[in-house]
Amino acid sequence: MDLPSLRDLGELRIIALLEQALGTSPNTVIGFGDDVSAVRLPSGKVGVLKTDMLVGSTDIPPGMTMRQAARKAVVANVSDLAAKGVKPLAGLVALGLPAYMTKHHIQEIAAGLSRGAKEYDFHLVGGDTNESKDLTITIALFAIASPRQVIRRSGAKVGDIVAVTGEFGSTSAGLKAVLKERKAPQKLPKPLYDAVYNPRAQLDLGLKLASSGALTSSIDSSDGLAWSLHELSEKSRVGILIDRVPISKAAMHFARRYGYRPNDLALFGGEEYHLVVTVRPERFVSLRRATRGKLISIGVVTSKRPGVMLEQRGELISIPRKGWEHFKR
Amino acid sequence: MDLPSLRDLGELRIIALLEQALGTSPNTVIGFGDDVSAVRLPSGKVGVLKTDMLVGSTDIPPGMTMRQAARKAVVANVSDLAAKGVKPLAGLVALGLPAYMTKHHIQEIAAGLSRGAKEYDFHLVGGDTNESKDLTITIALFAIASPRQVIRRSGAKVGDIVAVTGEFGSTSAGLKAVLKERKAPQKLPKPLYDAVYNPRAQLDLGLKLASSGALTSSIDSSDGLAWSLHELSEKSRVGILIDRVPISKAAMHFARRYGYRPNDLALFGGEEYHLVVTVRPERFVSLRRATRGKLISIGVVTSKRPGVMLEQRGELISIPRKGWEHFKR
Repeated sequence: MDLPSLRDLGELRIIALLEQALGTSPNTVIGFGDDVSAVRLPSGKVGVLKTDMLVGSTDIPPGMTMRQAARKAVVANVSDLAAKGVKPLAGLVALGLPAYMTKHHIQEIAAGLSRGAKEYDFHLVGGDTNESKDLTITIALFAIASPRQVIRRSGAKVGDIVAVTGEFGSTSAGLKAVLKERKAPQKLPKPLYDAVYNPRAQLDLGLKLASSGALTSSIDSSDGLAWSLHELSEKSRVGILIDRVPISKAAMHFARRYGYRPNDLALFGGEEYHLVVTVRPERFVSLRRATRGKLISIGVVTSKRPGVMLEQRGELISIPRKGWEHFKR
Repeated sequence: MDLPSLRDLGELRIIALLEQALGTSPNTVIGFGDDVSAVRLPSGKVGVLKTDMLVGSTDIPPGMTMRQAARKAVVANVSDLAAKGVKPLAGLVALGLPAYMTKHHIQEIAAGLSRGAKEYDFHLVGGDTNESKDLTITIALFAIASPRQVIRRSGAKVGDIVAVTGEFGSTSAGLKAVLKERKAPQKLPKPLYDAVYNPRAQLDLGLKLASSGALTSSIDSSDGLAWSLHELSEKSRVGILIDRVPISKAAMHFARRYGYRPNDLALFGGEEYHLVVTVRPERFVSLRRATRGKLISIGVVTSKRPGVMLEQRGELISIPRKGWEHFKR
């Protein structure tokens, strides 16, 4: 038999297989296929649920300490809640620990988890540990929200402004510097080092944006900017036109020096925790002021035909749906 | 440096290290160290959270299908909620998938997850998948409850009756038959086969017991009967005297035939999903009737000095705290 392997399938089709088998209930407000899931509660509110796992063999770059890895596992989960405008209430942690680990490793992991939770003002209140061949740090977050408060991937409308909460490419540049250019992590310029080893989730900004009522859709950029734009496009059934690619100075500098294409670093990276949102056009200027300029306009929603285009030097280029999809690298 | 390894530490001390680093908040109603965690909600209710991971290399016995393993991952999580008298509202699943897996494996895992969730009347509404060296199936469950509804490990009082919801030893006997006696799983007597490959959580019974108001403490027996009794003893700070070890007929038969000590099978097994509870003495008879005899009295709470003793043939034997602790086998 010639069965499709994991890598043939890719994460999206694996998730689709799960979704199909598991179905939804009348209480499922958001199921698979958004940054978080949500279920209706008897009180009329929704319970918001998120899980994301970090795997040692694929998600920890050279030079990352256990403490940084554990903190990053928290950040990755919080970032998804940030994109939905939801504040975490509490979390759990399940650890798969290889037999070679010592008490020191556990203490480092615990310190990283604690640090991450503290930064975003919640507690990890329980968990499970098991011996495993691969290090895995799986966080599950829980929150309560009003159903209307949770910004989905699916609400973008023609005329909306497409915006992001930061410049892209630093994570990708930092990873390439370490993995391809064999740079010692400690020798990286600080913006690249921090992007890879100490990433931050945009929780405060996400809460502010969502509570403004000006957002029509939102996603976090952890799978890459191009992938995130395609998700908003597909889930909202709209076409997106990007008129500039927001590239960080540090990424641009790295690209020039080592011969990478800046757009590729910014569009097709991943594990970069900004938010990608669409904003009602009449609300954009006031929202930009309210967030002290942290919101960067990069394009508009132009049509009802899904797709992501880039206008550059007078030319229209179709941006492929490439990104950080696991199993398909 | 000679640092303690995972196996020197054992799961309990690893959890203690985590607990110490992570702390608790004023909203933490139940933290680490019980079957579930719980946090106070603005509504006055509590959010109940549980995560438990199944690891391919240590938790899947020979002959267990992917479908059975995935279902068992659900059962293990539900069992902890059952012990607390709490009904799951929704869940998440995080999968670590080895690269050799095919579409067929994923479909089998999805079918097992779906089956498990359906049996206990909730939905898995989201999740994450990653490539990993070891198969891991991590479930997180979420529920809402009244704070008083959640039965802890810590409420047992002197005079309470100690009871269980079933007979023990079948899982241990089944595992020994397959692992030590090299029996083909298909050749096992049905009670042993079902105990290992198709275990069931006592959710309906757990809800009934908890809602009676007659329980003072409760735990599920997934780490073994002896371990569970010691947990109730320590967390409640009471001494427990067992006057009979509840052994299943099938386990007794297996023990006689292959030369095992029946008490060892029943006391020191694990992954056997009964409930171990303490009951107010004046309520025991009516509760036993209400549960149609499914509640089996095995002893009493005798003192305020923690410890677990067994009275057998006129002798008092101290039951060691041995069980199914990961990392320490």
